[in-house]
Amino acid sequence: MSTFGTLFRVTTFGESHGKSVGCIVDGCPPGLSLVEADIQIQLDRRRPGQSNLTTPRDEKDKVAIQSGTESGITLGTPIGLLVPNQDQRPHDYSETDLYPRPSHADWTYLQKYSIKASSGGGRASARETIGRVAAGAIAEKYLKLVHGVEIVAFVSSVSNIAMPFINEQDERLFPEDFWELLNTIRREEVDKDAVRCPDKTVSDKMRERIHEAKEAKDSVGGTITCVIRNVPVGLGEPCFDKLEAKFAHAMLSIPATKGFEIGSGFKGTTLFGHQHNDPWVLKNDRLGTKTNNSGGTQVIM
Amino acid sequence: MSTFGTLFRVTTFGESHGKSVGCIVDGCPPGLSLVEADIQIQLDRRRPGQSNLTTPRDEKDKVAIQSGTESGITLGTPIGLLVPNQDQRPHDYSETDLYPRPSHADWTYLQKYSIKASSGGGRASARETIGRVAAGAIAEKYLKLVHGVEIVAFVSSVSNIAMPFINEQDERLFPEDFWELLNTIRREEVDKDAVRCPDKTVSDKMRERIHEAKEAKDSVGGTITCVIRNVPVGLGEPCFDKLEAKFAHAMLSIPATKGFEIGSGFKGTTLFGHQHNDPWVLKNDRLGTKTNNSGGTQVIM
Amino acid sequence: MSTFGTLFRVTTFGESHGKSVGCIVDGCPPGLSLVEADIQIQLDRRRPGQSNLTTPRDEKDKVAIQSGTESGITLGTPIGLLVPNQDQRPHDYSETDLYPRPSHADWTYLQKYSIKASSGGGRASARETIGRVAAGAIAEKYLKLVHGVEIVAFVSSVSNIAMPFINEQDERLFPEDFWELLNTIRREEVDKDAVRCPDKTVSDKMRERIHEAKEAKDSVGGTITCVIRNVPVGLGEPCFDKLEAKFAHAMLSIPATKGFEIGSGFKGTTLFGHQHNDPWVLKNDRLGTKTNNSGGTQVIM
Amino acid sequence: MSTFGTLFRVTTFGESHGKSVGCIVDGCPPGLSLVEADIQIQLDRRRPGQSNLTTPRDEKDKVAIQSGTESGITLGTPIGLLVPNQDQRPHDYSETDLYPRPSHADWTYLQKYSIKASSGGGRASARETIGRVAAGAIAEKYLKLVHGVEIVAFVSSVSNIAMPFINEQDERLFPEDFWELLNTIRREEVDKDAVRCPDKTVSDKMRERIHEAKEAKDSVGGTITCVIRNVPVGLGEPCFDKLEAKFAHAMLSIPATKGFEIGSGFKGTTLFGHQHNDPWVLKNDRLGTKTNNSGGTQVIM
Repeated sequence: MSTFGTLFRVTTFGESHGKSVGCIVDGCPPGLSLVEADIQIQLDRRRPGQSNLTTPRDEKDKVAIQSGTESGITLGTPIGLLVPNQDQRPHDYSETDLYPRPSHADWTYLQKYSIKASSGGGRASARETIGRVAAGAIAEKYLKLVHGVEIVAFVSSVSNIAMPFINEQDERLFPEDFWELLNTIRREEVDKDAVRCPDKTVSDKMRERIHEAKEAKDSVGGTITCVIRNVPVGLGEPCFDKLEAKFAHAMLSIPATKGFEIGSGFKGTTLFGHQHNDPWVLKNDRLGTKTNNSGGTQVIM
Repeated sequence: MSTFGTLFRVTTFGESHGKSVGCIVDGCPPGLSLVEADIQIQLDRRRPGQSNLTTPRDEKDKVAIQSGTESGITLGTPIGLLVPNQDQRPHDYSETDLYPRPSHADWTYLQKYSIKASSGGGRASARETIGRVAAGAIAEKYLKLVHGVEIVAFVSSVSNIAMPFINEQDERLFPEDFWELLNTIRREEVDKDAVRCPDKTVSDKMRERIHEAKEAKDSVGGTITCVIRNVPVGLGEPCFDKLEAKFAHAMLSIPATKGFEIGSGFKGTTLFGHQHNDPWVLKNDRLGTKTNNSGGTQVIM
Repeated sequence: MSTFGTLFRVTTFGESHGKSVGCIVDGCPPGLSLVEADIQIQLDRRRPGQSNLTTPRDEKDKVAIQSGTESGITLGTPIGLLVPNQDQRPHDYSETDLYPRPSHADWTYLQKYSIKASSGGGRASARETIGRVAAGAIAEKYLKLVHGVEIVAFVSSVSNIAMPFINEQDERLFPEDFWELLNTIRREEVDKDAVRCPDKTVSDKMRERIHEAKEAKDSVGGTITCVIRNVPVGLGEPCFDKLEAKFAHAMLSIPATKGFEIGSGFKGTTLFGHQHNDPWVLKNDRLGTKTNNSGGTQVIM
Repeated sequence: MSTFGTLFRVTTFGESHGKSVGCIVDGCPPGLSLVEADIQIQLDRRRPGQSNLTTPRDEKDKVAIQSGTESGITLGTPIGLLVPNQDQRPHDYSETDLYPRPSHADWTYLQKYSIKASSGGGRASARETIGRVAAGAIAEKYLKLVHGVEIVAFVSSVSNIAMPFINEQDERLFPEDFWELLNTIRREEVDKDAVRCPDKTVSDKMRERIHEAKEAKDSVGGTITCVIRNVPVGLGEPCFDKLEAKFAHAMLSIPATKGFEIGSGFKGTTLFGHQHNDPWVLKNDRLGTKTNNSGGTQVIM
């Protein structure tokens, strides 16, 4: 179904050919200051057409809050969010009426539903992510205000051009400057770069590679690294709903993703236990860990 | 949360002061013919202001399908439904800003959320039922087409004016003509009557009683009887999600409801087991029951 | 499915012919003192054979905690509860192999699953309620300790023999002494009476009626009234999961129940709004209601 | 919570110090032949102590079906499964009472619950996976019978000793013989090898590496590759519950896992789109794909 979450829950709707895309965000606490600009800023970051590196369409997705707030304050009731589709051309990708695109969901939808939207990807269009981004904007605002949570994601590889910590291996798994980066990187810095890679030298090479692909009417893959700081203690559940399991679920539900790692990830599998375990140490007179190979599930700062 | 259902699921949003009310209907099978008129017909039946018996506002709730269909056929994807609020007066019930209304949810919302919508009932407004009615219209269309399901509800009592089968008691619990009514009553007949009571004599008295109350700026209670014919075998689950338990859940979630009965209901508790049990008999060469005190959970026609 | 609840959740299993019945209680807070005697006391209250009024089998259901506690303290992890079936006779009701019993679930199970347990009611056996009672015992202990919640239920009618407040009508709906009863009744008093009716005169008549039925190899229906005191503010959700809707769901999921009322119930439908509304009044310098026709959803003491 | 799944759902319970571990499997279709041996065979495969490579304890986990079947046939009702803990020593890892182990859940549990099981990992013990394996055995039996589904998993790397397809890169991502392996590998072959690696040369090196670690009282990491053949068309949902997202959720919920890939995985991100897309081709007169970089979500054979 099109719902994710238990206490804070988003349900999305919308195809590219319809009147709008959007979502209902249920479970947002009451009393949170929330206006459309809080959400719009993230939709603008999501929007294609921000640089000459991505698809040229400038979609100008404008969100309108339908419910759940009054005078800019949340009521604790479901927040309806709507983003009109400006361009509802029913046949903008007309060949897809006739042939399923390779490595797109066209054929899979036809097999599952015996019907599919005639244009674009229908429900598998990247426009579906608008609802997620909008809900995420609200969640992030709350988490930042109440817990000081900071979430920063950046592009760490494009094609085979990677930031230094990718593909390297030593006993610490990741070099010191990678941890330094994770501790200090800010979204504002990332957003200044068109490729969203905080390493200028690497970013330049990535940009070149993307241009090559674009000129050849091709595309390239890549990886994203995300750090979340100040995560409240106790999120997640034992067994089935471990925090890392929920993250993996969420991340692999994003279109065109094929892998997920947390902490030491696949690199960690090459190590012996004595190298990989995070030893307990004193940190500011409290229990902490010397390393963070487990990806945050052990650390108390 | 604002979601009901498992495989066919509705999530609603909207207060009376916001831009719109609506819902997302998820799990609707693909390939169903569905246009706005299919839903509008039920919203028109729901709408206040259809007669001089109800509240005078003529809200003209117009539904717009946002997603989930193409060329009038469902895609199997979430159906977004939107009904704009024409009149978003923020203070149309201005006294409620100052005093909580008795037997309304004003005070309860304040206690739970420490905030409430300033006008109308906010989320507890009867406008919240628009989303349910819209989702129900889709569910009913599907059930009728695929299983021949017929759902007819009517007003069976207003104040102490009741159709004959209410408050009567005999060994059969309900008189024969009540069963005849349940087997034959059609929605079109019910809708012809302003009170929605199919018994002309009783309806006249009800109308009079409602007018009395209205003139005294008062209101009256009542009961609704609903029959569902051609229910597919096997709906519901053992134990917690028995069909009657889900019905009770759904019915008691409608604002201002205080009781639910199925089959023989409370009357049945006055009988001995030998009077109440539904004996197995042959019906058209198949196993059937002589009576239906269990309210449909035993009967095979 | 066989699961009820969201944050505090019970999943039950077990038929009368199997090795055991039981449940998993998930979401119980850690740090609660909990030993088998806390649960056993309620299973003993549930058990048939406590008086000559009920079925003669003395089942002696002994619960064993499998997990979720250590040294009598809950760990916050799932609590597995097991009650062995002492008597696993596969054919103790042998005729049910051949004929479905009227007004039992035998035929319904066969229609839904194409198979049913050969003896007793299988999953529809009253033994299924053991899991619910066990889970309820834990929930009640927690609610009592943390919120002072008191839950008292009693038999208010058997056949057409009813406590005075049933079937009566006046403008207050229920006489003063009924409210007095609800405010003061204690479980210990109720349990002293074999019929579980706190009105001695009425109880005597009920007992007689039950004996009559029993001698005639018959049974009789009845109603139960339950009061919950000190309910924490804010339980339940707007719209679909109103507290009264969840109660109705839970109550109608108990085998052989056919009706549910809260507050004024069906009686309340006969009144005018000005009679039925619960007026706000000062109570101990705080906002309270003069009456409680809404059944607790408005009252702040 | 300790529940996974929607229509077929498992809820687990149990710590190593309690009386038993187990689960309730709800939603298993009726009419399936199911006896304890069907489950025991998988518990035996799960069990530590099968070779001198793993932990020395021989736990002999014997499963007992408590409910949900009669005469070896499922009833459609919840299947209760119980595995007694033979050894309930409360203090077998006595130091953990005093110190939290590095990279174990001890400290995390204390932070979340303010209490933890005194011995072993409590709920985070590897014994928790018994419930999953038992439920999986039932699911697999059903899927095999009804859809011919075959599931084979094997160890593809231990420490930095990997089967050839790991760490290699070419335009086809994986060499032909890897695909050949995935199409033909059978569980029986895998189980013959103590390391569960089907490549004899690689397995020998792995065994050596594990022995080295064991002698040094150390441990090593590794990766597992799994192929599922004959998956029914249409499993999974658009958006949040994509099949790969649910897989990722399930896999990352297994203790001590840190990464998940499907199809081309992280390797695929190094390619251009024209290299990575799975072109449509005719296969046996039906639409198929030349490659399977998407990991099965496009392929129709």
